[in-house]
Amino acid sequence: MCIFCKIVNKEIPNYTIYEDDQVLAFLDVNPTAYGHTLVIPKKHYESFVECSSDDLNHVMEVAQKIAKKMQENLHCDGINILSNVGEQAGQSVHHFHVHLIPRYKDSDVIQIEFNPIESVDFSEIIQKIGF
Amino acid sequence: MCIFCKIVNKEIPNYTIYEDDQVLAFLDVNPTAYGHTLVIPKKHYESFVECSSDDLNHVMEVAQKIAKKMQENLHCDGINILSNVGEQAGQSVHHFHVHLIPRYKDSDVIQIEFNPIESVDFSEIIQKIGF
Repeated sequence: MCIFCKIVNKEIPNYTIYEDDQVLAFLDVNPTAYGHTLVIPKKHYESFVECSSDDLNHVMEVAQKIAKKMQENLHCDGINILSNVGEQAGQSVHHFHVHLIPRYKDSDVIQIEFNPIESVDFSEIIQKIGF
Repeated sequence: MCIFCKIVNKEIPNYTIYEDDQVLAFLDVNPTAYGHTLVIPKKHYESFVECSSDDLNHVMEVAQKIAKKMQENLHCDGINILSNVGEQAGQSVHHFHVHLIPRYKDSDVIQIEFNPIESVDFSEIIQKIGF
């Protein structure tokens, strides 16, 4: 089973930002920025391209809500919203997911390479985002 | 007036991929890959964060349709779907837009820096995408 389906099924723990019947949002455990979040449909789709319009709408609606929370509560200076389709585009987990990558004044601009940052307090970030 | 509003109003020409009452999709004139496309709501929103849910849904629906066309008709090996919020995230035009960046076997993986490619036949790409 794919790793994100295992996360949805609670077989693997996750740092949940938001959850409902249809969508799960959780922190990327290899974050490229403080607050780097993934939003996924609970149903398995290979990528953005295969996602049903109903699930896609809801994933994006949740992504937008979290982006607002990031602005308000993480005080980021920018956000990249990114979904990769296929390994050639950098997709490593083949379950549709949207990256929300907050950007801060001291970080590079449009730097999307996935370089992990050092020690992170995941629980603190969840609290700060404030769902 | 913002440059994308001028494009919507036909004050500036564009290489249209798709258009309806609500959404316009057109080729990026400074493409980072062959077929690099922008999808925008016709109504002006500063970024992804401010977009109405109805316009957001339709923008993403159109983006998904174009992504499928890119796979089928441009034979790309991957696609990055990207929207930047704020200058710190690389947003240069402050009218919400989604980048669709096809990736090919001979190109870098997850390379999102906006390096323009050399001479491009825009009309040929529009034909190949095939709306």
